[in-house]
Amino acid sequence: MKTYINPNQIDWKKISERPSITTDNLMPLVRKVFKEVEKDGDKAISKYTAKFDKVNLANFQVSENEIALACTKVADPLKKAIKIAANNIEIFHNTQIVNKEVVETTKGVFCWQESRPIERVGVYIPGGTAPLFSTVLMLGIPARIAGCEKVVLCTPPNKFGEIDPAILYAAQLVGITEIFKVGGIQAIASLTYGTATIPKVFKVFGPGNQYVTAAKQFAQQCGIAIDMPAGPSELLVMADEKSNLNFVAADLLSQAEHGEDSQVIALLSSETMIEQLSLAVETQINALARRDTASAALKNSRIIVLKDLNERIKFVNQYAPEHLIITEQEPETILCQITNAGSVFIGPFTPESAGDYASGTNHTLPTNGFSTTYSGVNVDAFVKKITVQKITENGIKNIGETIEVMAEAEQLQAHKNAVTIRLKNLKNEN
Amino acid sequence: MKTYINPNQIDWKKISERPSITTDNLMPLVRKVFKEVEKDGDKAISKYTAKFDKVNLANFQVSENEIALACTKVADPLKKAIKIAANNIEIFHNTQIVNKEVVETTKGVFCWQESRPIERVGVYIPGGTAPLFSTVLMLGIPARIAGCEKVVLCTPPNKFGEIDPAILYAAQLVGITEIFKVGGIQAIASLTYGTATIPKVFKVFGPGNQYVTAAKQFAQQCGIAIDMPAGPSELLVMADEKSNLNFVAADLLSQAEHGEDSQVIALLSSETMIEQLSLAVETQINALARRDTASAALKNSRIIVLKDLNERIKFVNQYAPEHLIITEQEPETILCQITNAGSVFIGPFTPESAGDYASGTNHTLPTNGFSTTYSGVNVDAFVKKITVQKITENGIKNIGETIEVMAEAEQLQAHKNAVTIRLKNLKNEN
Repeated sequence: MKTYINPNQIDWKKISERPSITTDNLMPLVRKVFKEVEKDGDKAISKYTAKFDKVNLANFQVSENEIALACTKVADPLKKAIKIAANNIEIFHNTQIVNKEVVETTKGVFCWQESRPIERVGVYIPGGTAPLFSTVLMLGIPARIAGCEKVVLCTPPNKFGEIDPAILYAAQLVGITEIFKVGGIQAIASLTYGTATIPKVFKVFGPGNQYVTAAKQFAQQCGIAIDMPAGPSELLVMADEKSNLNFVAADLLSQAEHGEDSQVIALLSSETMIEQLSLAVETQINALARRDTASAALKNSRIIVLKDLNERIKFVNQYAPEHLIITEQEPETILCQITNAGSVFIGPFTPESAGDYASGTNHTLPTNGFSTTYSGVNVDAFVKKITVQKITENGIKNIGETIEVMAEAEQLQAHKNAVTIRLKNLKNEN
Repeated sequence: MKTYINPNQIDWKKISERPSITTDNLMPLVRKVFKEVEKDGDKAISKYTAKFDKVNLANFQVSENEIALACTKVADPLKKAIKIAANNIEIFHNTQIVNKEVVETTKGVFCWQESRPIERVGVYIPGGTAPLFSTVLMLGIPARIAGCEKVVLCTPPNKFGEIDPAILYAAQLVGITEIFKVGGIQAIASLTYGTATIPKVFKVFGPGNQYVTAAKQFAQQCGIAIDMPAGPSELLVMADEKSNLNFVAADLLSQAEHGEDSQVIALLSSETMIEQLSLAVETQINALARRDTASAALKNSRIIVLKDLNERIKFVNQYAPEHLIITEQEPETILCQITNAGSVFIGPFTPESAGDYASGTNHTLPTNGFSTTYSGVNVDAFVKKITVQKITENGIKNIGETIEVMAEAEQLQAHKNAVTIRLKNLKNEN
């Protein structure tokens, strides 16, 4: 990890740089696969599944039998853990339902918002060495709470044409029944256009590698909404002299093991902490199975010392981390001044991995500085809000003239007429 | 207007087609202007303002004097109308502030969401023949309620290098002080990259012509968020035999006058209504200053008869209109079944133009079928939500094992360690 002692503010931007990722070079391939899926549907899905996933599948849809069988294969302790996590996620996301509030802005003019689920959503779960069943919970539960009618899950098959049982178990637990063995670009393309087998959706959620990221970007250009721009995972830990540096080291490593392009930052109040922290990282990393990945990620990572608390807060806000752990004293006071972060973990006993799995918060979060602008996934992401208004006879009498004056000033006479014709009608009736 | 009597459901998709718009052909120009603005900053802005707006400006920023002078030029009745509208918009959008709600998902595990304003936002107001001061209110007021620190307004100058006084009046009324005489692609590019004069922002809001739309699409690819995909304005009116068809005609025309590519749909319960409606449209259109525009828009427009109420509701949901007027009997009952619409107007005395100006709801709404997926602009669009969690010693004891089991199953050992190290620490202390 590169170390910076009280860096000048001019250099913060440079220090905050993420490992660069570009998907531009993948776009020709993405465009090609999308075109073929649009034209040939399932045939193109078969072709690219054979090519990229090395398996020939007669049927992409996971059957009820496969789901039932998978559920018998998941060990009981894991089932229990998944259920506890699902319950916490459900409790937390249930607080995000917004009740409608009718307001009378002018006498006789009633306005409100009503929430409606996005009817059809797609959930992408990456394959790879580890089955990310936790992401199934993180996307499936808010979708169910929102009331989405159709939740379509795509995830790549392994070379035997199978899906990890834990993914299928989590899916059935949260009520997802339409599950397809399709991964990568062809999965996102099929959700964009729909095929004979795979339904078209309006919005696509979920993480993925650079191919999936590029495909989601392209889907957006085709009029499909996406959850948020994606990037490698990040963590910033704020620590002071009283922080437990063994905990800090463990937290940094938990994020570093995600991938070689992950970035972790230790933001310390004093240089005296550097040696102990470095030693703790070194000791702990050697015991890790994924130590090579973590070591590579540490090369993108930084230890930064800023003595002044206000400077530390300022740095956090301009870095805009995906995950922020505040292990300093009085974390709540610091939190009040944090403006840019995806998810914040406060106090010594709140590891970031709690939020990844089981505390109840969502782990699908904005990376790459996008926490300046985007929220993480929540129930809001699965609904849209419709505004409604109802104006009484008195109401239109009360605001009619205001509308007429403004419409005329904007030279939109027909807009004005729509009011005038109603006011005249009311006059004639009296 | 093309007329369809009880069309077969198979044909609905075809009937629902919008006038096609494509911005693909503009992308080379957009890319060129963006590149130049990124490289040359204000110099490129000057160049393109001279080229596209036919005016040479030494300074793009509107001065305090110009704003003060503009305020003296706006007629008092218009000032009064703008103030009443602003007040209603403020009342309605104030209801959209969400209070934080802390939930204990497991004993000792506290989770909540906190709202934070997006620090820097850009507001684009189109130029053209009519000054769209109402859009200044619709974007400036929720930005202020959200607490955005920097709200930057760009709008094209006329050939004398001036901005319409009503726009400047509305801007100062809602507290926008950074106003720039820059329009089109170069405005969106300057908000994307920032120049010596114009600040970079994180999210860009506002309507615009096809150049602005293409520029916003490109800005999104550069990592700038946008309010929503744009398209021509639309209105669908649901009417039955008891509806006042003169009102319906006035409402259809109010939307048709927006532009030649606007689309309006009258969805009727009976063919007996067609003649009277057509006559009312014909009579009213002749009195309009913008009758040529409205006539052209009517060519893209439709009268559709569906006798069955459930079919009408189904049609609305699959069309997903920007604006929906329900003048049928018992509109509230129908509303409950509407899943896709941007803004809904219920009852005979609720013209769509009320929502355009003064009732309090926002007029920046999803078009082109995007109300399936997107909300209109509201306070939410100017904030992002940060999740926060705090776990006590007991809390981590309660959910620690769950996290460990799940992390292990996902083969993320360092995630598990971050918990284990804390649980051990607590054991050693006792």
